[in-house]
Amino acid sequence: MDDFDNNNLFAKIIRGEIPGHKVYEDDAVLAFMDVMPQSDGHTLVVPKAGSRNLLDADPLILAALIERVQKIAIGVKAAMNADGILIKQFNEAAAGQTVFHLHFHVIPVFDGQPLAPHSGEMADMGELAERAGKIRKALG
Amino acid sequence: MDDFDNNNLFAKIIRGEIPGHKVYEDDAVLAFMDVMPQSDGHTLVVPKAGSRNLLDADPLILAALIERVQKIAIGVKAAMNADGILIKQFNEAAAGQTVFHLHFHVIPVFDGQPLAPHSGEMADMGELAERAGKIRKALG
Repeated sequence: MDDFDNNNLFAKIIRGEIPGHKVYEDDAVLAFMDVMPQSDGHTLVVPKAGSRNLLDADPLILAALIERVQKIAIGVKAAMNADGILIKQFNEAAAGQTVFHLHFHVIPVFDGQPLAPHSGEMADMGELAERAGKIRKALG
Repeated sequence: MDDFDNNNLFAKIIRGEIPGHKVYEDDAVLAFMDVMPQSDGHTLVVPKAGSRNLLDADPLILAALIERVQKIAIGVKAAMNADGILIKQFNEAAAGQTVFHLHFHVIPVFDGQPLAPHSGEMADMGELAERAGKIRKALG
């Protein structure tokens, strides 16, 4: 396994060097909209502490992270009025990982609506901003 | 959301009423082979404490669970000599959930080998037993 590179895309969003449509932030975690969503409301939950993926993460970081994943999954489901929530987490390129900073996908699913492919089109920025606002509101 | 039903399939495996190809067990968690694997080594990690899925789980149970998911993911990757690990977790039927007891899928991925569909064929029981043995060995 390769090492963690602190110049990855998500580390830059965490440091504010690249903008993101943020829905939640605390000392340990940042959550923001996926710009190539598989469905409306697709959100990424990322620990601020750097690890490449789940396999090399500090277990304490992971424990804090999954609690935020739960909180955000509940908020996304409510905000988007979704019928279900799919959680995905990729480790290494063979498994679909493209950004090598641990992250969980929180993907709302709607009855009868298939998910878009993972590497689909860039979403409209105005729509992402609107969805991020809804989710922030649901998270209180 | 419907309630948790303690007669679900995984609760029965935890109680030993139905057999499973176990790879790991402690006070909080049981892990065993998925009988309809998406790839060789596909393992399920299930908390013994009952919750329907991630959305209604006790955050402390979830924190303990994700540490075991990590441990088992590392073991599965090593045992199966996989190139990556895909973690999936389904919440509600719309998202693909079929057994309503919280569980994480740990799915080894191999370069150039597409995953089987989620509701594929039942695996050969002898092969599952052999893979479970390899994973138990990797977990030490």
